[in-house]
Amino acid sequence: MSLIVQKFGGTSVGNTDKIKAVAERVLKYKQQGHQMVVVLSAMSGVTDQLTGYAKAVQKVPALREMDMLLSTGEQVTISLFTMALKEVGYDAISLLGDQVSITTDEMHTRARIKKIDTELIRKHLDEGKIVTVAGFQGVTVDGDITTLGRGGSDTTAVALAAALKADACEIFTDVNGVYTTDPNICKAARKIDRISYDEMLELASLGAKVLDIRSVGFAKRYKVPLHVRSTFTETEGTWVVEEEKIMESMLVSGVTYNKKEARITIKNVPDQPGIAAKIFLPISDAGIVVDMIIQNTTTGDMTDMTFTVIKSDYDRAMVLLEKLVKEIGAECVTGSEDIAKISIVGVGMRNHSGIASTMFHILSKEGINILMISTSEIKVSCIVEEKYTELAVRALHEAFALDKANLPIEEKEPVPSNEE
Amino acid sequence: MSLIVQKFGGTSVGNTDKIKAVAERVLKYKQQGHQMVVVLSAMSGVTDQLTGYAKAVQKVPALREMDMLLSTGEQVTISLFTMALKEVGYDAISLLGDQVSITTDEMHTRARIKKIDTELIRKHLDEGKIVTVAGFQGVTVDGDITTLGRGGSDTTAVALAAALKADACEIFTDVNGVYTTDPNICKAARKIDRISYDEMLELASLGAKVLDIRSVGFAKRYKVPLHVRSTFTETEGTWVVEEEKIMESMLVSGVTYNKKEARITIKNVPDQPGIAAKIFLPISDAGIVVDMIIQNTTTGDMTDMTFTVIKSDYDRAMVLLEKLVKEIGAECVTGSEDIAKISIVGVGMRNHSGIASTMFHILSKEGINILMISTSEIKVSCIVEEKYTELAVRALHEAFALDKANLPIEEKEPVPSNEE
Repeated sequence: MSLIVQKFGGTSVGNTDKIKAVAERVLKYKQQGHQMVVVLSAMSGVTDQLTGYAKAVQKVPALREMDMLLSTGEQVTISLFTMALKEVGYDAISLLGDQVSITTDEMHTRARIKKIDTELIRKHLDEGKIVTVAGFQGVTVDGDITTLGRGGSDTTAVALAAALKADACEIFTDVNGVYTTDPNICKAARKIDRISYDEMLELASLGAKVLDIRSVGFAKRYKVPLHVRSTFTETEGTWVVEEEKIMESMLVSGVTYNKKEARITIKNVPDQPGIAAKIFLPISDAGIVVDMIIQNTTTGDMTDMTFTVIKSDYDRAMVLLEKLVKEIGAECVTGSEDIAKISIVGVGMRNHSGIASTMFHILSKEGINILMISTSEIKVSCIVEEKYTELAVRALHEAFALDKANLPIEEKEPVPSNEE
Repeated sequence: MSLIVQKFGGTSVGNTDKIKAVAERVLKYKQQGHQMVVVLSAMSGVTDQLTGYAKAVQKVPALREMDMLLSTGEQVTISLFTMALKEVGYDAISLLGDQVSITTDEMHTRARIKKIDTELIRKHLDEGKIVTVAGFQGVTVDGDITTLGRGGSDTTAVALAAALKADACEIFTDVNGVYTTDPNICKAARKIDRISYDEMLELASLGAKVLDIRSVGFAKRYKVPLHVRSTFTETEGTWVVEEEKIMESMLVSGVTYNKKEARITIKNVPDQPGIAAKIFLPISDAGIVVDMIIQNTTTGDMTDMTFTVIKSDYDRAMVLLEKLVKEIGAECVTGSEDIAKISIVGVGMRNHSGIASTMFHILSKEGINILMISTSEIKVSCIVEEKYTELAVRALHEAFALDKANLPIEEKEPVPSNEE
């Protein structure tokens, strides 16, 4: 008997028929003798509808009230889902974040989980119940409802799996798993059977939308085997596991792109100690997230500072910086929204040199100019002009032979699948 | 400075524009220096929508899950309402039943309030905030969400007013107040300025939909001045107050009717001690509520037992009774759904005899046959054929001169109105 945490997203529980179908699916696992904890998101569309209401009454909705509002979405789903389980004869109970209790910090609309009590869940599991838990929500020590931000239900599921020491955490979604790249722009994209936590972390941070990055971080820290798979098919998806459990890794596991960033350059900044802080503190105080930062010394005591921000923060950042440029005695600020970040990710890079230069070579062969470069131990990212996105992705996918399957896998799946 | 609890129903907060309008209205009171607690219902239609979802997934929805589901409706409204208050510059905070905490028993979907903590509300009031509280919901000592049944938001408001020793509880609704009878069937119906708790209790129990009967009971017990008025006009509604505060009462304050009951007769029941219990215990065990009960001794040791039940319970009651009739040796069970209960209510009856016989005389003059009679200290109810409902109401309204205004009122309103 295993303890399995399963999470179903909004499209999986988008209406009452889908809720019933998911209940049937969960039952199959229960009938195999597993203890089941099911984390659910709000029905698709509900969060947007509620957000629309909020903006209709307050231009910038108060964050505490926003959490009070949005957390109702998951509450509706878990109660309906529990009814659906009871209708087919299984005992079940729904629990809210504060009932569990999933304690978070007080950062409303983007709270972080601090602590999870497992006592109540264990009690219900031991009584043979299927426990359904509202995703995306928690509670502060003062009893205020918080939410974990978009994609927060993934985090709830993985955090619960970690706290419960579950045998696996399965994330059911509307795609079949993690792909070597976006199948929409590269037909040769292939589903990855197994990927390491580190690779998945890079992919998630680079724009792959299949998993919330915090949930992968949780999974890595607590070694929770994570299975990303489709709600609508019975086939296996992608297992996100420890690197040691993958016998032979590809040099490059995936190619990803992100069109959501914009590039900003401050020209001729006086190159003094503390200048970076003078620029980035006000930006961070304004809640603007900066991704890549590159500093090039140009002439003598001047330097160019280039960085990327989320496009939706671009206008705000430019207004702020135009003021700042004068204060710090820089020449001017320029920027562009027509850029894309193309990245390759793979733990194989750790042991093989030359992957980055291969990437630069492939892009150059296609006539694509690289505007910025950033590397980590297991990824290389290049900023290019946005119009080259699809071309770059396809060229890299082919050059690194990502359409070829992984080598055989070392061990069996930790959780029996429910395939017949 | 007064402390006022105001409750707005579903139609008053049916969309975001209405929510904003109600926020403006509440602000006027706040600006007059009052401390404000606002209780809200779910947006109109939401409870029905959620109930529809529930029935789509479980034929007979589990009650605990139903409460989990339905309580989201009020949660949405209070958060949006709080945002609307903040948008116009007032500090406000929304609180759920379990945050307050409004502790109830464990009778899901029709829980009763046991205890209300006022500490948190007082803290926020003292900080100058407008406190919005989710109506209709509470929490068990084990932390399960409960709901108080339809109309439960009225009860929440009055119970909060009682616990907070508020100066008044104002129930805003889609009618102008309590009328001498239903204006839809009697054009001469007149709005009552002041009515006693006892009269209001009778009117509510007899089918007047303007106030939930439990809320009137709470108001009476804790002497909470209750003001029923329209969300959509500024005019005063009806004050429900202690009898002593009404200088001169009418003999009859109102005429009410109820078409929601059905009549059942068990013929020739052996007239033995304990026979009533044998009949009504199984009915009560089946959750069927019995209203009027009349027992007529017919011949010797036989008796006829007649009573009324809610129409929606009628079929179930008949099935149960056809079995029971054989067990207790009665002749047969008959029934009719085509009946109506016509009632007159007035504290004046206490000191005046002959009101009941006047009522019987008026009905007989109109050729209306009385099928059952039931009386209390301040009301007389007659069951008649349903088709006579409107005729009976109009005849009684005219005969008791209910279209004439009340005599002048002894004292001023306890709460300043917000009229200019």
